[in-house]
Amino acid sequence: MNKRMIAYVLGLLLLCEAGLLLLPLFVCLIYSEPVIASFLVTIGILIVAGLILARFKPKDKTIFARDGLVIVSLGWILLSLFGALPFFISGEIPNYLDALFETVSGFTTTGASILTDVEALSKSILFWRSFTHWIGGMGVLVFVMAVLPLAGGGGDLHLMRAESPGPSVSKLVPRSNKTARILYGIYLAMTVTEIVLLLIGGMPLFDSITIAFGTAGTGGFGVLNSSIASYSKFCQIVVTVFMTLFGINFNIYFLLIFRKFKSALKSSELWCYLGIMATAIITITINIRNYFDNIFEAFHHAAFQVSSVMTTTGFSTADFDKWPEMSRTILLMVMCIGACAGSTGGGFKVSRVILLLKYAKKTVRSLTHPRSVKTITFDGQRVTNETFQGTIGFFIVYVIIFAVSLLIVSADKNDLVTDFSSIVATFNNIGPGLGKVGPTGNYSSYNSLSEIVFIIDMLLGRLEIFPIICLLTPPIHKKHFRKKL
Amino acid sequence: MNKRMIAYVLGLLLLCEAGLLLLPLFVCLIYSEPVIASFLVTIGILIVAGLILARFKPKDKTIFARDGLVIVSLGWILLSLFGALPFFISGEIPNYLDALFETVSGFTTTGASILTDVEALSKSILFWRSFTHWIGGMGVLVFVMAVLPLAGGGGDLHLMRAESPGPSVSKLVPRSNKTARILYGIYLAMTVTEIVLLLIGGMPLFDSITIAFGTAGTGGFGVLNSSIASYSKFCQIVVTVFMTLFGINFNIYFLLIFRKFKSALKSSELWCYLGIMATAIITITINIRNYFDNIFEAFHHAAFQVSSVMTTTGFSTADFDKWPEMSRTILLMVMCIGACAGSTGGGFKVSRVILLLKYAKKTVRSLTHPRSVKTITFDGQRVTNETFQGTIGFFIVYVIIFAVSLLIVSADKNDLVTDFSSIVATFNNIGPGLGKVGPTGNYSSYNSLSEIVFIIDMLLGRLEIFPIICLLTPPIHKKHFRKKL
Repeated sequence: MNKRMIAYVLGLLLLCEAGLLLLPLFVCLIYSEPVIASFLVTIGILIVAGLILARFKPKDKTIFARDGLVIVSLGWILLSLFGALPFFISGEIPNYLDALFETVSGFTTTGASILTDVEALSKSILFWRSFTHWIGGMGVLVFVMAVLPLAGGGGDLHLMRAESPGPSVSKLVPRSNKTARILYGIYLAMTVTEIVLLLIGGMPLFDSITIAFGTAGTGGFGVLNSSIASYSKFCQIVVTVFMTLFGINFNIYFLLIFRKFKSALKSSELWCYLGIMATAIITITINIRNYFDNIFEAFHHAAFQVSSVMTTTGFSTADFDKWPEMSRTILLMVMCIGACAGSTGGGFKVSRVILLLKYAKKTVRSLTHPRSVKTITFDGQRVTNETFQGTIGFFIVYVIIFAVSLLIVSADKNDLVTDFSSIVATFNNIGPGLGKVGPTGNYSSYNSLSEIVFIIDMLLGRLEIFPIICLLTPPIHKKHFRKKL
Repeated sequence: MNKRMIAYVLGLLLLCEAGLLLLPLFVCLIYSEPVIASFLVTIGILIVAGLILARFKPKDKTIFARDGLVIVSLGWILLSLFGALPFFISGEIPNYLDALFETVSGFTTTGASILTDVEALSKSILFWRSFTHWIGGMGVLVFVMAVLPLAGGGGDLHLMRAESPGPSVSKLVPRSNKTARILYGIYLAMTVTEIVLLLIGGMPLFDSITIAFGTAGTGGFGVLNSSIASYSKFCQIVVTVFMTLFGINFNIYFLLIFRKFKSALKSSELWCYLGIMATAIITITINIRNYFDNIFEAFHHAAFQVSSVMTTTGFSTADFDKWPEMSRTILLMVMCIGACAGSTGGGFKVSRVILLLKYAKKTVRSLTHPRSVKTITFDGQRVTNETFQGTIGFFIVYVIIFAVSLLIVSADKNDLVTDFSSIVATFNNIGPGLGKVGPTGNYSSYNSLSEIVFIIDMLLGRLEIFPIICLLTPPIHKKHFRKKL
């Protein structure tokens, strides 16, 4: 393990966070709010801590696969621990654990909140809260890479893979910091487009920016207690469309930019994602048609809710917890499936679902036709055993963590539906669940132990489990980590 | 496919069922109940149908792997369709679908009931209801094999594997009908022992026999509305112990009979099974200690309930649906894990859980130590890739069927906890769930569509999914099924 390099990158990361905090500081100045001290103090602490760590300038800039995982998990933990300071110091979230919950929920783009009254917070604090979604959505280390040249070789690739374990976007352009820049370029362009459209729809500028942050990161923090319900219908449609767009694999946008339209449209994950979404929307529309004035209204809310939940954003326009059982069940299921790999969304990911289905089909086939040997392909490419082992291992570990979390949280005083859906909602980085944590509720009814479980689950969910596990398991053979992830 | 042989075996099976119905007929004579006609008519129909099918005497007695799967699934379906007749003809369950639900629940040893008042039924009907548990527990085709010499070669082995897909019990004795006889011998001896102990505990003879049937098959049908709650504490302890014993892999008893004590005690599944059970009992005891007069009372009920639910029996002495959230969650989890492979119990099976955990461990290891190559062993034997593929394929298919079932059932008018736990309870062949289908409730609030889903799930659960799937997929290469399962 290259410890000096780990410390160095973490130092740069903290300095970057200090830089990012200038934006809410600026908002604070505009509205001349009294919480300015909390931002200044946090920035000060970050600069000192960052400079101390960045002094470990390494001679050897190699980042091994394991180093990448360690940097990403430690990075996200540090980022959250410091990012919670403005909430805590300003006194707007007086309990540090609550502030940490809110920050982790922000960075992991979960959008779960312990706040009972969002509107009571200062504008700049709300801005920082929503901004964490935007930062977390595309990945902090990807941002660092886009801004600073980190390391040569495949090192930064390890970082990027560990942070957003989608498919290998990097194959399209040779250098990964160029990839990072293009990714952030697309991300920024889409966010700005959404802001403009929301402004056209009559939303105030502050709300437009923060809601666009929440959509882009598929996070879900709003600035009103009613989430998106009180904005105009046009704005709600804009948000629906953009949630769906941000749930698509960024590889597709990459391909579109490079004018490879054919390969972009050939993605089976894309069609599967849109297919599941459409099926869910139609079924729910039929199921809830009597809850609204007309079928178009029902369709509007079904479409908003399905795309919000499936992309793991978590905005709401209606209290879907009051919808009929079947709709709630469907929402719970698309919550678990989640968005496309390589998007800003969370969940189990559509591509993994496809892989598992293919595997199941193969097993059934080999049972009824024992002699048939069929290799599994995905978008024309042969799926290796390693990929399968990874996906299946992930699936099993996912189920185990889910069960353990549920067990701990069930010791708290809430009901089974609330407990179950709160784990689904935090682990998949969605935000609202059902019952007490439903769209009109929040997580304030849980005790500290459960809050810690949720914080861990959100981080595990965002980083897709393995980097954190890697952080917790000791290395045995120190020298053998050059192999690619 | 050897169609003549399939028809022939199914014919024998129906004749066997006619023979088994003589026992409730005998009970009917003792209590001189008016429902005697329903048994006579059913026996008559079975003899006619059985003789017609058995006339397809095949020249070639070979049973291929696929044939075995088809015989088992068709066999179980026919057995249930005819077995429901006594309930229906007697008018004690006036709706045929309800009668079928009750019969499938019996044969699959689920123990889920649509009856609101069990005590209103005739003794002989209740006897048949409990007897189906005993027949289904060890497997009907294993019974046919124990009574009649079916086929040479590995044919009957395919049958036995398809019906009770535990480990290869057959390796201990060369001929599989001898295996079948020893299995039924152990089964009968244990059942008789339990009946004697229950009689000592002061339970009436009729109740002792039926409750022993329910325990042996890990079924759960009782003859009183209060299930086991009104019997003496001694009887409840006897039932607790025997439920646990019937949830153990019968391989262990095999080994004990052949005096191979060392290999019997080396089974990691056994220790894992007992370990999970003990942990669950202790945790629940602590969790519910305030619900009972003293800690011993709490322990007594926790032990009864955990062994009842984990072995997928489904008897109850207390309304565990009223226990705190954590206990309910633990019960729901051990429900899903289930008993040992090769036992009469259902569920996902402890050995499969162990395999998946080992797989997950390997995946994590290969991530943090990419160069390490470690083969996975189970009780000292290397686990082949085929076994893994089977287990993982099973897991995925299990989750898919679960999701689809939940979706269909959620269209009914019940709440999410009831829906969710009713699928868990039928698919894992447990019986009672939580909410409306809890220990004091029943399945009568569901409509016909949901009932059909439950019937299919119970059969899929008991036959471990693949035989039924095999029945539904058409063969392609007709001649290539000689390969072992």
